[in-house]
Amino acid sequence: MDYQPLLEEVLKDVSAYRGQGSVAGYIPTLARADPNKLGIALALEDGSAFAAGDGEETFSIQSISYVFSLALALHHQKSALWNHVGREPAGSPVNSIFQLEMEKGKPRNPLTSAGAIVVCDQLIGADTADEAVEEMLGFLRERSSDESVAIDEGLAMSESQAGAFNRSLAYFISAFGNMQNPVAEVLSLYYRQCSIAMSCRQLARAALYLAFDGTDPVSGDAVTVASRARRINALMLTCGHYDNSGDFAFRVGLPGKSAVSGGILAIIPGTGAVCVWSPGLNAAGTSLVGVMALERLVERTGWSLFGHGRSLG
Amino acid sequence: MDYQPLLEEVLKDVSAYRGQGSVAGYIPTLARADPNKLGIALALEDGSAFAAGDGEETFSIQSISYVFSLALALHHQKSALWNHVGREPAGSPVNSIFQLEMEKGKPRNPLTSAGAIVVCDQLIGADTADEAVEEMLGFLRERSSDESVAIDEGLAMSESQAGAFNRSLAYFISAFGNMQNPVAEVLSLYYRQCSIAMSCRQLARAALYLAFDGTDPVSGDAVTVASRARRINALMLTCGHYDNSGDFAFRVGLPGKSAVSGGILAIIPGTGAVCVWSPGLNAAGTSLVGVMALERLVERTGWSLFGHGRSLG
Amino acid sequence: MDYQPLLEEVLKDVSAYRGQGSVAGYIPTLARADPNKLGIALALEDGSAFAAGDGEETFSIQSISYVFSLALALHHQKSALWNHVGREPAGSPVNSIFQLEMEKGKPRNPLTSAGAIVVCDQLIGADTADEAVEEMLGFLRERSSDESVAIDEGLAMSESQAGAFNRSLAYFISAFGNMQNPVAEVLSLYYRQCSIAMSCRQLARAALYLAFDGTDPVSGDAVTVASRARRINALMLTCGHYDNSGDFAFRVGLPGKSAVSGGILAIIPGTGAVCVWSPGLNAAGTSLVGVMALERLVERTGWSLFGHGRSLG
Amino acid sequence: MDYQPLLEEVLKDVSAYRGQGSVAGYIPTLARADPNKLGIALALEDGSAFAAGDGEETFSIQSISYVFSLALALHHQKSALWNHVGREPAGSPVNSIFQLEMEKGKPRNPLTSAGAIVVCDQLIGADTADEAVEEMLGFLRERSSDESVAIDEGLAMSESQAGAFNRSLAYFISAFGNMQNPVAEVLSLYYRQCSIAMSCRQLARAALYLAFDGTDPVSGDAVTVASRARRINALMLTCGHYDNSGDFAFRVGLPGKSAVSGGILAIIPGTGAVCVWSPGLNAAGTSLVGVMALERLVERTGWSLFGHGRSLG
Repeated sequence: MDYQPLLEEVLKDVSAYRGQGSVAGYIPTLARADPNKLGIALALEDGSAFAAGDGEETFSIQSISYVFSLALALHHQKSALWNHVGREPAGSPVNSIFQLEMEKGKPRNPLTSAGAIVVCDQLIGADTADEAVEEMLGFLRERSSDESVAIDEGLAMSESQAGAFNRSLAYFISAFGNMQNPVAEVLSLYYRQCSIAMSCRQLARAALYLAFDGTDPVSGDAVTVASRARRINALMLTCGHYDNSGDFAFRVGLPGKSAVSGGILAIIPGTGAVCVWSPGLNAAGTSLVGVMALERLVERTGWSLFGHGRSLG
Repeated sequence: MDYQPLLEEVLKDVSAYRGQGSVAGYIPTLARADPNKLGIALALEDGSAFAAGDGEETFSIQSISYVFSLALALHHQKSALWNHVGREPAGSPVNSIFQLEMEKGKPRNPLTSAGAIVVCDQLIGADTADEAVEEMLGFLRERSSDESVAIDEGLAMSESQAGAFNRSLAYFISAFGNMQNPVAEVLSLYYRQCSIAMSCRQLARAALYLAFDGTDPVSGDAVTVASRARRINALMLTCGHYDNSGDFAFRVGLPGKSAVSGGILAIIPGTGAVCVWSPGLNAAGTSLVGVMALERLVERTGWSLFGHGRSLG
Repeated sequence: MDYQPLLEEVLKDVSAYRGQGSVAGYIPTLARADPNKLGIALALEDGSAFAAGDGEETFSIQSISYVFSLALALHHQKSALWNHVGREPAGSPVNSIFQLEMEKGKPRNPLTSAGAIVVCDQLIGADTADEAVEEMLGFLRERSSDESVAIDEGLAMSESQAGAFNRSLAYFISAFGNMQNPVAEVLSLYYRQCSIAMSCRQLARAALYLAFDGTDPVSGDAVTVASRARRINALMLTCGHYDNSGDFAFRVGLPGKSAVSGGILAIIPGTGAVCVWSPGLNAAGTSLVGVMALERLVERTGWSLFGHGRSLG
Repeated sequence: MDYQPLLEEVLKDVSAYRGQGSVAGYIPTLARADPNKLGIALALEDGSAFAAGDGEETFSIQSISYVFSLALALHHQKSALWNHVGREPAGSPVNSIFQLEMEKGKPRNPLTSAGAIVVCDQLIGADTADEAVEEMLGFLRERSSDESVAIDEGLAMSESQAGAFNRSLAYFISAFGNMQNPVAEVLSLYYRQCSIAMSCRQLARAALYLAFDGTDPVSGDAVTVASRARRINALMLTCGHYDNSGDFAFRVGLPGKSAVSGGILAIIPGTGAVCVWSPGLNAAGTSLVGVMALERLVERTGWSLFGHGRSLG
């Protein structure tokens, strides 16, 4: 089926809202993002892929990277990972450290900054941050079938320089004994994974295996077991959007992960993966126009997990 | 298809764990519950229904009632309800008042005690608690096709007498100006809805419309619009189990609602509704054996929202 | 020594600020207070007493009553009282319930609303609220040598009707098992003690024994032992002014207790007691002009506990 | 007057409790402290000084240093310091970051770790940490009339290596924009000031000016103005002992500052300064036997700020 017209239409539906929301401003590279950018891409079981608007343009994947580092860390640590990080929604704003104190340095889930830092530490394990970065890049290149995926090193440097809050989180976790590697080493991985540049098309393709119980339906690669793929989706649904995860489930009804760069990756189990990008964020840090686009897409296709009408898709 | 053998098998799988967990002890009626009770029931699109173990025995539905009062309040108030209650996961234990303070008396979602109290207030609206109770009972009788559904009035009285924490929540909400009716009136509805006695079979049947975009597939009644049914499911998935909603999504992967009496209602969009009951609770207040039973059921059927294999169901 | 000119001068110093601050508005009786009222009174060891401005006019003593109910409860319960309430500063705004949750229903100190409610419960003990009210009134009449001290019953009724937040606190404490009497009984005492009407002159006189190690220097009555009087003073210094107790110590340097009606009672150990009244409050709920007046008084007399110059007094 | 016998007696009174409490264990140097050490020293207006037990032995002054860095920072920044740090008691345990989040990176008072870090930043100002360390050492040498006061550099190194929690605090403050110098520079001063080694005798002597409105009564040096000395005393009284400042005021009734090394410095306005040292700490981090010794001393002398009997002293 040709989804190109549908994607075009979805973008048209929401294009009047382009430029709304606030572009993340904590580092110059992000602050300079063009608020009118708007892209979408869809990858399907049969290998077909569609992109519209700026869907082929790269942006830093920021916290969308958490989904992939979680997948890799679970591959290495298996359920031992859950000794170091929980799997409950956070219930607090993106920049809050309160729950980390209440829960003695164990982040509530791997899709918050604190949780992703712990996942980075576990992913490094007995290796180095450089090795973990290589593993991550290799994984994303293989999953997206695109060797050009790379880190924006200048951005990684800026992120690190601006990163007082994340440094605070990391030392706080360390003070509770929940970090095995030096903070500097862990953050070196963290900032580089956040600075990987990818397009909507590459991200949708890379995440396709999550929609098919862990097996890439195009290459046939058994990337992970079904239970793990389902659980990553479950975490995305309950925890993927800072303190508006509930609202995203309510409005879109798909597992997803938002990033401060304005990207949102969403999984359509049994069907495919979709990614949108628009830099203006809502008050909770999710792409304002991006979530509108996904809402329209799901309305038109019936892809919500919560309805009867998935057969419409 | 005959699901009877499957339900029996699921109960057999978990029956070794019967009696584990802690029975809720804050009022004598609940504390006297037999920890060895274990029941399950399934209602399907074609009107077929299956029950096993103690699946026909009634228990007080407690916070499972929140799903139905939410449905009714949304019917009356429509999206104005969201001015009074949020839709984000709570991120704090069942007996915490902290977030309510941070968020100035607006509960995070309608499936916590605080949220359900606000929903009760909205459901009463300009009427009386007695009228709202009647509406609620009428709705549950109609949806379960069973006129025998009734309130355990003795239990309602005990709940009210023991309810210092909920009284505290209600006055706190009222202090922030988020309550239009007197606290006593609102709690009168709240305790009576929690004391409605239903069986797993009745609950699964009553919730069937939520699996079919708001239309009861057996009676053909258009109970609510598709978007509202989907949204209630989304809220159940992100917020339905106190501070283990994330874990429930991770393990079971279905929209659900836990109750301190040991019941769990779960929705299988496009397929049906299932309810389990076993009084022993885990540390977060969800039925310990109940969640295990649902986990087995989903493993065997592929009904998780997050996998490819729903066609197995 | 004739302190009359000094008191007049102090009032003159600050009278330009009269009317600033916000009058407490949660009940009409308080909201109607004239923001230009300004009074002061001083009671000394030799029985001499001085009043200036509106220092003879009565106002509801509100949380200044906590000092006296604490004294009575300590008399009855002795150090067992500290099993029910702590003695640390609160570190949170006047209307916060958060710490009460963190500390499982044990208020941090007896000079917050929550703490005063627990003190009321302990003061009632096995008696009734009515008996405790009588004891309290009798104590204040005796200590102020004035039989006319009385409750403003209309105000007590209004306070009770408006008191959703305090009801919430009381039920929360009760939910943690830290209340032996029914909430309604405890609040009946609480609201009546807050509604006792006294003037600056009466309050300064009534508190005189706290400045002299527990013995009223005029009547010679041994009201309490030295260690208890000192400890009440210590609590007033560290906890007497909601979340600006530190600032009061910093600026004034005397044990004191603020009330939302704009009264502030302060103790000058070894010298006497002083009370000011001016209804406009600062952001933390302490009389804005009242604290300025005390600041000037202490500057002129050297009465601060923290300086060398007490001999000036 | 010869206070030597009194000090000996006080130590004798409490010596049965020596060894109780927990020695701070977060770095080896502190953990190795002999729990049986017990010393006391008193410095008076006339230059007389008394020491008993281990009162001449040096220990790291740790957070007692906060009193002196506060005095220096106030000297430089004057009231502008209060833009960066508050003056309210903390109301939370020593290792809590929660309030710092609630108050957007402005520590509640200068006598907590977070507050002391901000004071260090302000003390450095446009200089370097090395210069600030020199100023601090010079000040302590002059005030204690002892050129031998020095930093235990090995300890400073260990503190820095173990200091994940303080690093977390510092980066958190920095993330809120409340730090003008680099975190590493600020902590370099912080850890060195905490590692200054002094005896009870030296500390009591150095703080003597705080008891006399800012003027050293022995040398006649006008160290600071009266209002500032009084305010430092007020802060010590309300905030000097982590989350047992209220209890210290209640039991001892003097401005004081506790340190994790087991030292407690206390000021007796108009009379002198006293310092005790005993490494075993109570649950809140204050010297368990130290506070008992001060309690006895005050009982015997009537030096409590809150009583009539100061003339006994």
